Amino acid sequence: MSEELLLSVPAATRLAENAVRSVRITPVAFHDPPLLNTVGVHEPLALRAIVQVITESGVVGLGETYGDSAHLQRMEVAADAVLGCDVFATNDLRARVERSVAGDGIRGGHGMSGMVTGTSTGDRVLSPFDVATVDIRGKLLGVPASELLGGRVRDAVPFSGYLFYKWAGHPGGSVDEWGEALTPEGIVAQARRIVDTYGFTALKLKAGVFAPDDEIAAILALREEFPDHPLRIDPNGAWTVDTSLRVADALKDVLEYLEDPTPGLAGMAEVRRHTDLPLATNMCVVAFSHIAEAVRLGAIDIVLSDHHFWGGLERSRLLAGFAETLGWGLSMHSNSHLGISLAAMTHLAAATPGVGYACDTHWPWKREDEDVIAPGALSFVDGSLAVPTAPGLGVDLDPEALARLHRQYLDGGIRERDDTGYMQRVDPGYVLESPRW
Amino acid sequence: MSEELLLSVPAATRLAENAVRSVRITPVAFHDPPLLNTVGVHEPLALRAIVQVITESGVVGLGETYGDSAHLQRMEVAADAVLGCDVFATNDLRARVERSVAGDGIRGGHGMSGMVTGTSTGDRVLSPFDVATVDIRGKLLGVPASELLGGRVRDAVPFSGYLFYKWAGHPGGSVDEWGEALTPEGIVAQARRIVDTYGFTALKLKAGVFAPDDEIAAILALREEFPDHPLRIDPNGAWTVDTSLRVADALKDVLEYLEDPTPGLAGMAEVRRHTDLPLATNMCVVAFSHIAEAVRLGAIDIVLSDHHFWGGLERSRLLAGFAETLGWGLSMHSNSHLGISLAAMTHLAAATPGVGYACDTHWPWKREDEDVIAPGALSFVDGSLAVPTAPGLGVDLDPEALARLHRQYLDGGIRERDDTGYMQRVDPGYVLESPRW
Repeated sequence: MSEELLLSVPAATRLAENAVRSVRITPVAFHDPPLLNTVGVHEPLALRAIVQVITESGVVGLGETYGDSAHLQRMEVAADAVLGCDVFATNDLRARVERSVAGDGIRGGHGMSGMVTGTSTGDRVLSPFDVATVDIRGKLLGVPASELLGGRVRDAVPFSGYLFYKWAGHPGGSVDEWGEALTPEGIVAQARRIVDTYGFTALKLKAGVFAPDDEIAAILALREEFPDHPLRIDPNGAWTVDTSLRVADALKDVLEYLEDPTPGLAGMAEVRRHTDLPLATNMCVVAFSHIAEAVRLGAIDIVLSDHHFWGGLERSRLLAGFAETLGWGLSMHSNSHLGISLAAMTHLAAATPGVGYACDTHWPWKREDEDVIAPGALSFVDGSLAVPTAPGLGVDLDPEALARLHRQYLDGGIRERDDTGYMQRVDPGYVLESPRW
Repeated sequence: MSEELLLSVPAATRLAENAVRSVRITPVAFHDPPLLNTVGVHEPLALRAIVQVITESGVVGLGETYGDSAHLQRMEVAADAVLGCDVFATNDLRARVERSVAGDGIRGGHGMSGMVTGTSTGDRVLSPFDVATVDIRGKLLGVPASELLGGRVRDAVPFSGYLFYKWAGHPGGSVDEWGEALTPEGIVAQARRIVDTYGFTALKLKAGVFAPDDEIAAILALREEFPDHPLRIDPNGAWTVDTSLRVADALKDVLEYLEDPTPGLAGMAEVRRHTDLPLATNMCVVAFSHIAEAVRLGAIDIVLSDHHFWGGLERSRLLAGFAETLGWGLSMHSNSHLGISLAAMTHLAAATPGVGYACDTHWPWKREDEDVIAPGALSFVDGSLAVPTAPGLGVDLDPEALARLHRQYLDGGIRERDDTGYMQRVDPGYVLESPRW
């Protein structure tokens, strides 16, 4: 191999220049309305962490992840472990993070309240490093992230309007801009406003808050107001198998899919045996280790991917490969998030042929003036986001905005997401139950 | 997104330069000894097709695939379909090939005799285009293919010594350089020579040729001569479940794994229930569509990947993701091949952490002076190949050698691989049977 070896010098040069020189992790907090779900209610501030990965050559890549304190600690340990890693060497990046997580001794901090548990710690920690290195590779090569993920198969990505029961405002605070939504009429009014503002062509109701008949009524009211919008309901496992089947029967001609009606793979499989409605999940299949059992039980039809807990963009492509292979549909889950994540979700969905449903996003619930990215890169047209075409993720960090949201984190005092604890402070009689009905 | 859009110009420029301008497909033939297997015997010439993909900017990428005539026809149709495709746009490349294959109306031509059937036609056709575009991307970016596949996790890839029962020479021809191997002693002598020449540290016997007791005796003789070499036996589904279990019991302390003892997922699952020997396959799980049933039945422990029928290097990474997720070990299958394929296999294995076994290769059975690549890029040391470090695959086409092997294809007259037909011309009483014992 004599002659070939001489040619290895450029590769070696790249390795040195493209190694990770430093990582900055900045926890931030942004305002969040009192959105209700089956485990409680969103606190006044939502937490995220902004990750900046900087190469030896000075290229900066951006990632965004959960902001819970245990997760932050784990991220700090992992940040040390990835120093020196080549940003093209995804195998090495993952191995470093997995070793770090295996040895860090930190517990807790999944960042998703009680609704999404059982995700892989390694994949949660890997995710923002993966996103940031994709961003860097795109910048180095002069191509958008979507091109590094297989190339975009759509120029714009449709998102869904994510509807929530909510209080008029946080207890002790003033009425927020959205106001109260605790009835079918309130949900329809919320949907009308969100559709008029963003143009969403699909709607999802976060359920499991009121008795199933009330939530069935809300979906039927939405169907009346929006005869052509695909509709989804997601009670986060609040229902027994029997209740799930009763709701499925009542809404069988109305829903696009039924999301996590009941907890656990076995329960989902039991529901699935008795309804023709497609069953979607971001609760019972949330890690690669759940897939084999889901196949054996025949538990689901659609998986809601989420690069934040499926190990980043590269490993979300692996999930998409599973979905295609297993005949599962593919949609996308969201937690409260900022613009870096929205850009990453958009690139991923654009480059994933199997994404056949409008993706979830909490974007409308975030104040317009609260983000860490420079404004203008992402704007909804007819419910869809055009895929950014600038190199990498195509979004730029706004250092002043980052400092402001970090200050908000420091001053806000919230260090964990705790929807249940917040609800119990408001309503001491509140009990966490699953299934609830 | 005003400012961002300005930055999209370089990406657009790349798209035009990096589009596929032309594709050249050249069938070649090279000499092959009379290697015996359960479906017959290798003919005097093995067929392959060399694929050259050329971009608008003139960069040439290399691929290698089967040379059967139906496959060649299908490749020609697909070659037209990929013209204009960006070499970075793997989603688009695959979609073009799948559309082409769905509409080409061509039947047959799997290129693997009767031993490996049921592979995906789309993935077989996609493979050489995928390999060639990886080669191009590596050349454009100045990095070896392994770096584009996640980065190498090993600097050298171990291969196994692939042992065959064989005749002394082709009927009517002279004794070849390897001579006869039809007994345990003959197999041991062959193994000694192949180990002394290449340094292989694992050995695999192609079985299903003689009665199981004779093949058990050959493995036990190998164990005596090579006490520390991992040993494998592969009868290509020649045995019933009962025979498989009898062999498994006789060799349970000797084998590294038992490969395709019996045909079909159900039979493999039945064998697996009654032995502790790991069961490997490149026959019952040879396409993504087989995976779910393999999981449901619990049919296998190890999958032998092969980028030629798993859709290329990118999709072989997907298979590796499945293997990791499902707890399957990963090794690598081989047909008779040339240097482009050996380079591709080496890059893939180097960048796939889950490859935990020495990979199969037919390399020693090829004449040293017969290849389409310039000599020197690939040479075995202690049974392993150093991963090429030049950009792309790291091998260069030798145009004169290509012309010579193409001439050999034109003059040789063989247009399909047909081990069974060749055997029947030699031995008219030969009957194809599976299981045979």
